[in-house]
Amino acid sequence: MPGRLLSEAHVRHGNTLPVTALQRSYGELNPPDRLLLGAGPSNVHPRVYKAFISPIVEHLDPYFSEVMEETAELLRCVFRTRNRITFPISGTGTAGMEAAICNVVEPGEEVIVGTNGFFGERMKDIIERCGGKPIPLTERWGNAIPKEAVQKALSSSKARTVALVHAETTTGALQPLSDIAKITRQYDALLLVDTVTSLSGCEIDIDALGIDVCFSASQKCLNCPPGMAPITANERAMEKIRNRKTRVHSLYFDLSVIEKYWIESNRVYHHTAPILLVYAMREALRIVQEEGLEARWQRHRCNMETLTEGLEALGLEINAKENPCPSINAVLVPTGISDARVKSTLNNEYGITVSVGLGALRGKVLRIGLMGMNSTQRNVLLVLKSLENALKKEGFTPKHN
Amino acid sequence: MPGRLLSEAHVRHGNTLPVTALQRSYGELNPPDRLLLGAGPSNVHPRVYKAFISPIVEHLDPYFSEVMEETAELLRCVFRTRNRITFPISGTGTAGMEAAICNVVEPGEEVIVGTNGFFGERMKDIIERCGGKPIPLTERWGNAIPKEAVQKALSSSKARTVALVHAETTTGALQPLSDIAKITRQYDALLLVDTVTSLSGCEIDIDALGIDVCFSASQKCLNCPPGMAPITANERAMEKIRNRKTRVHSLYFDLSVIEKYWIESNRVYHHTAPILLVYAMREALRIVQEEGLEARWQRHRCNMETLTEGLEALGLEINAKENPCPSINAVLVPTGISDARVKSTLNNEYGITVSVGLGALRGKVLRIGLMGMNSTQRNVLLVLKSLENALKKEGFTPKHN
Repeated sequence: MPGRLLSEAHVRHGNTLPVTALQRSYGELNPPDRLLLGAGPSNVHPRVYKAFISPIVEHLDPYFSEVMEETAELLRCVFRTRNRITFPISGTGTAGMEAAICNVVEPGEEVIVGTNGFFGERMKDIIERCGGKPIPLTERWGNAIPKEAVQKALSSSKARTVALVHAETTTGALQPLSDIAKITRQYDALLLVDTVTSLSGCEIDIDALGIDVCFSASQKCLNCPPGMAPITANERAMEKIRNRKTRVHSLYFDLSVIEKYWIESNRVYHHTAPILLVYAMREALRIVQEEGLEARWQRHRCNMETLTEGLEALGLEINAKENPCPSINAVLVPTGISDARVKSTLNNEYGITVSVGLGALRGKVLRIGLMGMNSTQRNVLLVLKSLENALKKEGFTPKHN
Repeated sequence: MPGRLLSEAHVRHGNTLPVTALQRSYGELNPPDRLLLGAGPSNVHPRVYKAFISPIVEHLDPYFSEVMEETAELLRCVFRTRNRITFPISGTGTAGMEAAICNVVEPGEEVIVGTNGFFGERMKDIIERCGGKPIPLTERWGNAIPKEAVQKALSSSKARTVALVHAETTTGALQPLSDIAKITRQYDALLLVDTVTSLSGCEIDIDALGIDVCFSASQKCLNCPPGMAPITANERAMEKIRNRKTRVHSLYFDLSVIEKYWIESNRVYHHTAPILLVYAMREALRIVQEEGLEARWQRHRCNMETLTEGLEALGLEINAKENPCPSINAVLVPTGISDARVKSTLNNEYGITVSVGLGALRGKVLRIGLMGMNSTQRNVLLVLKSLENALKKEGFTPKHN
């Protein structure tokens, strides 16, 4: 176990490593076969793998320029937006979150942020790091943020940005956005939304709702490898960004600069796009387009309903019963049962990866995701039966037995 | 041409796009076959492609944990360091640069930075965005920064960080570091070095030289796809980082937080690592290890010498004659000849990608890279003959004819 070796080395030698640790040989990669039904990543679609190994060209090659155009067009379809500023950020979902916030928020500015899960808390952290002053709307992890709370915060502060998580991966809750979007507009504020776990799996229409900035990630309902974060911003948001008093502290995430590389026809170098990941993203979006967004949303909704019914039939309780998310479900672990052991059994004995709880829900829930191509009746049956067996192994008696 | 379609749409409709642009269908990817002998990316090694399509597992899977350990160990070998803090940042080379700078530099702090090329200028920009006060050491694009300039700047300022580019991709110059590293230590300052274009292709030994922070990129001499940026920081640097008065403005790039995910044995979620890119990086590093670093450096040096002799035999002038870099060469374009047309001929007629000039060298140079597996005698012969033909097409008469 190289992991163990290295950890011992740390303990013995403080912050540098012994030279011996640098001289061993390494075998071929041989990852286990896992069905990824956790909080993400999901499995990568075979067609996406295929796109992935296409010949690499230069980031400024005319061919790649076409691929970028097409990827941006396809992203607009999946976001349901006509926003010109629509492209993938070259980083993971957290990079997308940081890009969204660091462009919109200026130092000293108040920002309303829903903190009803790990990723809402993370947005609050990033707002603070950008010099903003978060106004947190706190809710139980599993509830949505009520529109009344948003209205009250907007009317009693100078905040002109509201940041919310659409599908809170850590709680299983889906945030209703329609009324909040209207209220936010009434106050001439921007609405910034995290759709990392929802994009292409849960119904959302950026332009129809009036969402101003939205980001997502490649590795959830899109079945792409992790490493890219789609983002879109409308003209209201870009106007605020272009009129900033201070420069965006990050060059890597500065939308006004990336725009010149990703969107303008006379592309100006900003960074070397992760070319093969862009190939992958384009193929994943093509698959979404072939299925159709409505059909895809419907499929996610149906399969998650079946899963929920099955979990309740086992006698388990759903954490976000009020606002269930079609792509992720957090189910409470029965008293006395170890989430880590159940996860471990599923991983080792069934080759199925689910996720344990994070933050306030650590040790309290197991999270089951049905994302993109993984949202099938077959997988619902499989995870229900495997989970039942794993729970029984820990002494749990299912209700229906 | 979708590109054209979309650009026209922009002109006609301002900042949103017509709905029609969102409804066409997209064919299969079919990239042209290119030999990438420009400033990067280089071609991806076939074994790296193979690693790339290995089954994806979760970012917290015990198997992936081993892969992370091994990747960090292999990175230590290629950096020649025993630094505990050694891992790939989940972004491109610019992300590595930003991570290095935003962790080390605090607002208001003076930082000495070599500005003798595009990437030195970029470091200056990022230092400013982080609130630092750059003290630029300016040199002709093609020269190295003299040690005397560094000494003078250290003795006449409060700066305790020196930032330099090892292999300046835009000029073809290699920066000597040995004396500068000693001087920097004498002043108890940190030395931060960009090895994006040099790592594994040009001799560098982080620990022996006494470099404190160093970052690179996956897509140059490592023949990985773009999207990862190896970084290493020693205990002197980490001590400065841990004692910061202000928080790092970026959560995504905060080394003290990423450390808990990448290095500590009890991994705490920070972001979803780009798992397949990590597989790719591990395989690329294994290939480096099999060849041996010295042999690899030697191969890059020999092939670049042959290329340089060949270019001079054609009657062309090398931009960085004094400090030539073994992985990249900037050759001056003869008067009256269009760099863009030569590049285009090489790309379209020979399937060879070289790079045009950037910044101060725009329109003045062509850049030929021999990186990783692309550094071969065969490619040297091929690019010399193709370039000769492409130049002749533009009316240039080679010297040796």
